[in-house]
Amino acid sequence: MRLTVVKIGGNIIDDKNKLSGFLEKFSNLEGQKILVHGGGKIATEIGKKLGIEPSYINGRRITDEETLSLVTMVYGGLINKNIVAELQSFNCNAIGLTGADGGILPATMRPVEEVDYGYVGDISSEKINTALLDKFLQMGLVPVFAPLTFNTDGHILNTNADTIAQEVAKALSHDWEVQLIYCFEKNGVLTDADNEDSVISTMTAKGFEELKEKGIVSGGMIPKLENAFEAIKSGVKKVIIGHADVLPGLYSGNAGTCIL
Amino acid sequence: MRLTVVKIGGNIIDDKNKLSGFLEKFSNLEGQKILVHGGGKIATEIGKKLGIEPSYINGRRITDEETLSLVTMVYGGLINKNIVAELQSFNCNAIGLTGADGGILPATMRPVEEVDYGYVGDISSEKINTALLDKFLQMGLVPVFAPLTFNTDGHILNTNADTIAQEVAKALSHDWEVQLIYCFEKNGVLTDADNEDSVISTMTAKGFEELKEKGIVSGGMIPKLENAFEAIKSGVKKVIIGHADVLPGLYSGNAGTCIL
Repeated sequence: MRLTVVKIGGNIIDDKNKLSGFLEKFSNLEGQKILVHGGGKIATEIGKKLGIEPSYINGRRITDEETLSLVTMVYGGLINKNIVAELQSFNCNAIGLTGADGGILPATMRPVEEVDYGYVGDISSEKINTALLDKFLQMGLVPVFAPLTFNTDGHILNTNADTIAQEVAKALSHDWEVQLIYCFEKNGVLTDADNEDSVISTMTAKGFEELKEKGIVSGGMIPKLENAFEAIKSGVKKVIIGHADVLPGLYSGNAGTCIL
Repeated sequence: MRLTVVKIGGNIIDDKNKLSGFLEKFSNLEGQKILVHGGGKIATEIGKKLGIEPSYINGRRITDEETLSLVTMVYGGLINKNIVAELQSFNCNAIGLTGADGGILPATMRPVEEVDYGYVGDISSEKINTALLDKFLQMGLVPVFAPLTFNTDGHILNTNADTIAQEVAKALSHDWEVQLIYCFEKNGVLTDADNEDSVISTMTAKGFEELKEKGIVSGGMIPKLENAFEAIKSGVKKVIIGHADVLPGLYSGNAGTCIL
């Protein structure tokens, strides 16, 4: 059976109208689906008002105790529950989840090596409670994940939304034909960064190596694509990267970059 | 089958150690169970820092848009998800829910009469999605409700936790033998307000009328008890009112005031 996992980030979440338009399109996608959302500027803004300064060590963002409370509130409460309520208004039976709910995404606190990242959780697809997720999907529920997990000590942990989307997609690919859609602010992987029409429609592992060598794909796109290829290796059928505005096109294979 | 619905308020939520002790006891209760939590001072404190002043009309607290965002964050995120993560650490498979999740508690925004309460949701037991709640309970999940509901316009709404506990207990009493436990800061209904040992162990509707006439039961306890008797009339087997510290005693009928 077909299952679609869609990830959205701050660029959609921070714009109420954009988010609403996106959620309506998401509601209309056929078949079983899961939404994973990231954070957004709103967490930073609320943090500033609360006097919580982002803390960095060696340029890396740290989740200290105050920041953890902030993201638990904003990601797990404000963003997640407003998305769920709006999806309900589009007749999409959403259920908002963190990794702690139903023990779905058990994590381990990232070990302290060069940097102590604080309350950050690492997850792996093998540990995910797929039995419960399967049941939710079969019951017609649409899981909406906030980028939060937990550990057995009873702590909520901060976890990257891209990673949650990827690991959930991998875990469910044993029983489902999973397509994983990463929505971002570009139309896809571009051959010319300044031309939104220069979307590479299909990419293979070999093609990716060539584009890297030529310097056409660079920067933050490289780890994104590496993760996409890793997901494919682990059984995910398709990974699509593209603009949230054209979600139905990404879903049907008529927009974005498709990684096979 | 036996089902226990427990409601806790701010007096437990605001004290980390008390809350932790309570959650361990709750985890150990046998059989299916549901937890409903209220707010607490923490919402007011965070609101103050964010510059959100509680607004009142004719002495009534109003949920304006800012307050709604605040309670969505604090009740639905911070409090709810930390409770869920801690319950998981006690091997209790909790799932945090607002009324919007799975469309479990549909509400209507309170109509404007003398006072416009703002984003406040009224619920009734007949509208509750008991089919979904039943499934969760049968799956071994322990629902943990934040005092939030939603309407079909896609709004999260603020709803009293006592009311949620009561309506959920009533709705599930068709299929379950429900006992509803209200935890508060007193040992039960007292014949002498200054003596915590003067707990009335059992109360009938007739006894309640007598106590009201004599002025032994007064103030805020009257609506609490009226609601309890209404729940009994609607099929709830037992309502117990007592101190959170002795939850196992309340559960087994050895502490608190039992309304029959």
